[in-house]
Amino acid sequence: MSLLTLGSVAFDTLESPFGRRERTLGGSGVYASFAASFFTHSALIAAAGDDWLPEYSGLLRARGVDLEGLEIRANTKTSFWSGRYFANMNDRETLQYDGNVMSGDYIPIVPESYRDIEYVLLGNMSPLSGMALLDALHSPKLVVADTMDFYIRTMRDSLMTLLTRVDGLILNDSEAAFLTGIEHSDLRAAQRLLEFGPQFVVVKRGEYGAFWMTKEGEIYVVPAYPTLNVVDPTGAGDSFAGALLGCLAESRDLTPDNIKQALLYATVVASLNIEGFSLERFQFVKRAEIDERAKRFKAMLA
Amino acid sequence: MSLLTLGSVAFDTLESPFGRRERTLGGSGVYASFAASFFTHSALIAAAGDDWLPEYSGLLRARGVDLEGLEIRANTKTSFWSGRYFANMNDRETLQYDGNVMSGDYIPIVPESYRDIEYVLLGNMSPLSGMALLDALHSPKLVVADTMDFYIRTMRDSLMTLLTRVDGLILNDSEAAFLTGIEHSDLRAAQRLLEFGPQFVVVKRGEYGAFWMTKEGEIYVVPAYPTLNVVDPTGAGDSFAGALLGCLAESRDLTPDNIKQALLYATVVASLNIEGFSLERFQFVKRAEIDERAKRFKAMLA
Repeated sequence: MSLLTLGSVAFDTLESPFGRRERTLGGSGVYASFAASFFTHSALIAAAGDDWLPEYSGLLRARGVDLEGLEIRANTKTSFWSGRYFANMNDRETLQYDGNVMSGDYIPIVPESYRDIEYVLLGNMSPLSGMALLDALHSPKLVVADTMDFYIRTMRDSLMTLLTRVDGLILNDSEAAFLTGIEHSDLRAAQRLLEFGPQFVVVKRGEYGAFWMTKEGEIYVVPAYPTLNVVDPTGAGDSFAGALLGCLAESRDLTPDNIKQALLYATVVASLNIEGFSLERFQFVKRAEIDERAKRFKAMLA
Repeated sequence: MSLLTLGSVAFDTLESPFGRRERTLGGSGVYASFAASFFTHSALIAAAGDDWLPEYSGLLRARGVDLEGLEIRANTKTSFWSGRYFANMNDRETLQYDGNVMSGDYIPIVPESYRDIEYVLLGNMSPLSGMALLDALHSPKLVVADTMDFYIRTMRDSLMTLLTRVDGLILNDSEAAFLTGIEHSDLRAAQRLLEFGPQFVVVKRGEYGAFWMTKEGEIYVVPAYPTLNVVDPTGAGDSFAGALLGCLAESRDLTPDNIKQALLYATVVASLNIEGFSLERFQFVKRAEIDERAKRFKAMLA
């Protein structure tokens, strides 16, 4: 089966205690579609500017990511983000952000071949872009939106409308607190988010893992994979979301076992992603390595 | 089999967003020995002053806690702690602490019948008290020490000596950071702690669960039980430690499966404890309820 991901492609300039990279490949769509491709046919919708580097497309195609929906727009620039991580590798500071071609009013062009895809991940993007994509699809079966503080702050009304059109919402604990005003319990924040429309909410807890809560009150919990080798956390949440949805698109059924298996794999994929800058480590990951780490992780869990 | 717990019995005055209690039953030894008693024969060593309330002993005896080692000293007062919890129920402020009869130089009197007990939990107590207990035991098989910031700050040298005499150390993530100076990763802090002597370290992550790390590099991870009903977190760490050691004393073998089972049960017991002030909820818990919640929890885990 297939997963369709809407998300940014970007140039990232990164600083962490482990080094620095200039204009390396990044963006929510890049990390998510790459992560999903380990599990299912993965198609990306995004736009780049005319400064885009074909070798970056090559990295995605080498993993089998379908880039028919990657539009290169003339006379525009690719999104750019630069940020710096602190010693704990969780806190970061954005130094510069230029949405450029994928700014808040970006309307995706949807290839005909994508319109029947049933599993859809709206990555960290403007809610307007997400709704425009949904309008163009024939019969999405499962739509999950990721979001971030930037859109909660600047486009709250559109985001709330989007939430009435998705099956699931995935976000960080700090974003859940920000969106609901409930600071003291991410479980209670998730309950409130479920009143906004989605059937389930997935709250990412950074170094502590994630949980999935449904409207019916079911909860699934996964701790983070205990890795000591965190080089660059950029895209951890995006690759988590991409792998999660990739697994679900392939299993096509939200049984508890499938959900838990997807959470386990998503955690493992995110842990592999953060062991190198950009796709430096991630590009060499094979499915067998994921399976092997998933097995080791499973053995660590109570 | 048996677990011997050294830890305080105390009067606690508590404030949380859910209410206030005056001079209610508390203390690390109370919570830990009570929690252990669900799984094994549980014996407590502690001292109270002549203001001790016999009905508090009754609460422990009703659960089968062996109080032969509870000494009532004349002309002294029982330990007293008062504290206040903030809205997130994780951060708390100590308003008053009087060690009284169980101050830093407290030397426990060990009943003859306790000297052959092989499983030992040194609860949140002065390291000097812990070493005095170890000196009095014939052949302890597994000794685990809990600690807290107070003793790290005031008795660091004694604590370091104690660490060379224990098999395991159990502590909060913030205490692990404080004791090692490693702030940015509780996994790395645990690795450093293993250099201080113990064969394994258990780091408690509050609302995010705990992990167990061995000198050989094995790791077991458990998230917290997702409870929305946190009334009073006092004793969560102590009841976690007591249940953990109680399970291990009963299974008598540190196989991965036994360790993981013990972590699961310890998490569940701690989650039941914090649903009421003091032992108000805990005293009515039956083993069947623990088993039932453990089963539900297991079904939530990836």
